[in-house]
Amino acid sequence: MLDDCIFCKIVAGEISASKIYEDDKILAFLDIKPVNPGHTLIISKDHFADFLQAPDEIICQMTLVTKKIGQKILDSRLGQGVNITNNIKSAAGQVVNHIHIHVIPRLENDGFELWHGREYAEGEEKKIAEKLKS
Amino acid sequence: MLDDCIFCKIVAGEISASKIYEDDKILAFLDIKPVNPGHTLIISKDHFADFLQAPDEIICQMTLVTKKIGQKILDSRLGQGVNITNNIKSAAGQVVNHIHIHVIPRLENDGFELWHGREYAEGEEKKIAEKLKS
Repeated sequence: MLDDCIFCKIVAGEISASKIYEDDKILAFLDIKPVNPGHTLIISKDHFADFLQAPDEIICQMTLVTKKIGQKILDSRLGQGVNITNNIKSAAGQVVNHIHIHVIPRLENDGFELWHGREYAEGEEKKIAEKLKS
Repeated sequence: MLDDCIFCKIVAGEISASKIYEDDKILAFLDIKPVNPGHTLIISKDHFADFLQAPDEIICQMTLVTKKIGQKILDSRLGQGVNITNNIKSAAGQVVNHIHIHVIPRLENDGFELWHGREYAEGEEKKIAEKLKS
């Protein structure tokens, strides 16, 4: 636990949250500033700065909880669709440096838009792919 | 394989793609309309309509590949941060109905913004949490 981490404090019960799922490793609770009602955050109880820092076992377990809550959002009709997002580092909009996955209920015509892409310039795609190949 | 599924055709080699990772179950390739260069799609080779329809084993395996590619994006300096997103159903912006995870490189001040939330009205949060509790 990190002393100045708001999510560690939620795990420790020092800050309250509307919990919707809990097991030995994972906690899920409502985001207090939802994009749409039912917007849920899934965190690991142990502190890891982000998704890339956490052990494989934890991120798999978090992913399976994400799946359950995504289905629950559809079943409860809080959403007609769901976005699952995970922001890594401040350049990507990560604000709390404790691993968390957003599960966001979506409704037809709720006004939120995904980012649009643009096409690669001639030859660019091949160069980029080379950089990412393992 | 579904005959009219563009991602099944990529798996079958009928449509080309800049592949960056492949194993027996999973394929990753560059999105042809990237939000930022290096924007990668991770899919399962078997056809499932979305994240909620796929077996747990597959979504765990996809998640671990996502982690590897996210780290590679940082290491290759294509991104200073990474967004991982997964859109389920058309209300959430899903266009191709074959499970896929977006891994999007992000740069400081690249102009893309996350959606903002709003606060719950008095009593609303508790009611919503009840609907989602398992």
